[in-house]
This record gives sequence, C-alpha cells and structure tokens, in this order.
Amino acid sequence: MKIIVVGATGTIGKYVAEELSKRHEIIKVGSASGDIQMDMTSIESIKVMYEKAGDFDALVIAAGAASMKPLNDLTEEDFYIGIKSKMMGQINLVMEGKKHINKNGSFTLITGILADDPVKGSVALGFLNGAVNSFVIGIACELDQGIRINAVSPGLVEDSADSYGPYFPGHTPVSMQRVTDAYQKSVEGIRTGEIIKVY
Amino acid sequence: MKIIVVGATGTIGKYVAEELSKRHEIIKVGSASGDIQMDMTSIESIKVMYEKAGDFDALVIAAGAASMKPLNDLTEEDFYIGIKSKMMGQINLVMEGKKHINKNGSFTLITGILADDPVKGSVALGFLNGAVNSFVIGIACELDQGIRINAVSPGLVEDSADSYGPYFPGHTPVSMQRVTDAYQKSVEGIRTGEIIKVY
Repeated sequence: MKIIVVGATGTIGKYVAEELSKRHEIIKVGSASGDIQMDMTSIESIKVMYEKAGDFDALVIAAGAASMKPLNDLTEEDFYIGIKSKMMGQINLVMEGKKHINKNGSFTLITGILADDPVKGSVALGFLNGAVNSFVIGIACELDQGIRINAVSPGLVEDSADSYGPYFPGHTPVSMQRVTDAYQKSVEGIRTGEIIKVY
Repeated sequence: MKIIVVGATGTIGKYVAEELSKRHEIIKVGSASGDIQMDMTSIESIKVMYEKAGDFDALVIAAGAASMKPLNDLTEEDFYIGIKSKMMGQINLVMEGKKHINKNGSFTLITGILADDPVKGSVALGFLNGAVNSFVIGIACELDQGIRINAVSPGLVEDSADSYGPYFPGHTPVSMQRVTDAYQKSVEGIRTGEIIKVY
C-alpha cells in the first residue's frame, strides 16, 4: 500500500512510520520535516499536500496541536487553537482525502484518553478528542467504495511519561508498541468506525 | 432558584421552562424572543446577556444550530456553523457563565444521540455532540464552589417526529416528558459530569 503518515517524525508517528514502512510505501508529511510539508490548520495547504502525494491507499495521522492550561486562564482563542488543528485539521484531511483515496483505502485519526478521562487543565484538549471520535463514528457509516476510518485513542504514552507524566497522576503509561499496534490494526485490519482505545 | 433558560421557546426549551417555572424564577433567553435576546455565536452577545440577567443559580440550554446535509455536499463552512453555535456557543456560555453563577449552581447543556448513533447526513452535527459531551466530562472535574455541569443527550423527540422522523429510520421517538425530566434531574439533582442519555 501507499500510505501517507502525517506527523511522521513525532513521538508516536515515528514508530508508526517505521512499522508500516516494513510492508508499505510511506510518504512522510510534517509541518517542517518529511517528504512533504503541510500546515494542517490550512485547508489550502492540505489540498496542496494531496496534489503532491497523488492517489494513496491509507492516511494515518499522528499530529495535532491543542491548548492545555488552567481552567480560569482559558480564552475562546485557546479553544480555537485545537479546533483549527487537531479537530478541523483532521476533519479536513479526511474530507479532502476522500477525493483522492483509492477504493478500499483507510483513514486513521488520533484522539486520546482525555475525551472521557480528563486531567487538570485538559478542558480545551479533551473536547477535541470527543469531537473527532464522534466524527469517525458518523462518517464511517457514510463512506463508500469500501473506504474505512478509525481513530486511535492513546493514553499517556511511555515516551511522553517523563515530560507529561506529572500532569497524569496515576496514569499507567502505555507502551509505544501498543500504540503502534493500534495503528497497524486500523490500516491492515477490516474494522471501520472503531475508536481503538489504547489505555 | 433563579434559572436562565436559553432556547426557552424552542421544541424542547418550552417544556423545560414550563416545568422549572413551577418551582423557580425563570429568565427566558432566545435569539429573537424571550426576556433577553442573545446571539449564542457571539461571545460579546453572551457577555451582554449575563450582565442583563445578573447572578443566577442555573443555566439551562436547549438551543444550538448545526448543518445537516449529504456527506459529499459538506464544506468546511458547514462544520463551522455548528462549531460557532452548538459547540462554542455552549462552551462560551459556560466559560462566561462561571464568572456569574452562584455557589452550588449548575449548567445543563444539550448534545444528542448522533454523537454515537449517527444517521445519514449527520456528520457535521454528530461531532458537535461528541465535543460538548467531552467538554462536560472534563470541566465537571475542575469547577469549584459546588458548581455542577451535565449534558442532556436526547434521541429523536416526539414533537420532532413528524418533521425529522424520516431522517431517523427505526428510531423510537422519546417523549417530551422524559427529556424534560432529564433537565430537571440535572438542575435539581446532585450529579455532575453526567451525560444524561434520553434514548
């Protein structure tokens, strides 16, 4: 398969790209690195990326910004940081991508544990995960030509435990292997509309 | 209690306002009707509404626009109709409202069945419900002074069955009484962070 990996050099994306590269052709997309550069907050930049990448069999996302700060410091702008990036960035990647993806292709998005298991300061991040989960559940029923879509929803991952662990008290870090397996399950498996919880 | 009802003349809001008015002081808010007019897509309009309403004990929302159309007709703008109204409208009402609400007060938001049980054409509506559900779950853990927040998530309601029923094949309409009960449970009960599913 020809697979586009968005966020291919990130904490999770680098493992996913490496694993999938054993069996597939990988096009790495990043904001400042990879084979193609793209700003996921811009639908125009997304369109240009798809023109450069050409037809493909799977899109995998391991990227998306959001704001994490104390509740009383949050402004409307903080919510929109995540809306434009992790929420509408992913949604636009699917809405534009479905015009280019091959029959029986798949999309794999990223959400996260904060959708239903919040921590202090996660209000403007958790709601994005809930939005993308429901988007996946909804659109999975409407995509045609055998095209599938799933979301990987990781908990705190091992490689982030040193930096983010203090914000996730009592959360048992999940292995990078389990998260990578979830992406592989989505891309190479048969299910659609699944929120693959890795926690 | 002094209760602000947003969408007080709508399909659901009129029942909620009537039930709560039996025991409480009600301030009706609407886009074009009620005691105070407000545009929920504008944070400035929300601020003005709270200044007019003064301190209060509960805010109840039964309003919020969104786009429902065939998948291939959806544009980025369609997603933003709901983001600005049902999603950020409700979030802004809470974020601004927590500056004015009395101790031990409560917020009750509205989401809906389409978050996890989609129908044809509901992609740009269902994701809003998922976002608001996760917002409620997250912020409930961070509100202080005994302030609570819940969401009522109705299925197809009886009074909409004639007009929307054809879009919800096989959905058993839920009674207006059950939906009204859910709002009452949120306002007069003790739970917080609950998604009260009425379906």
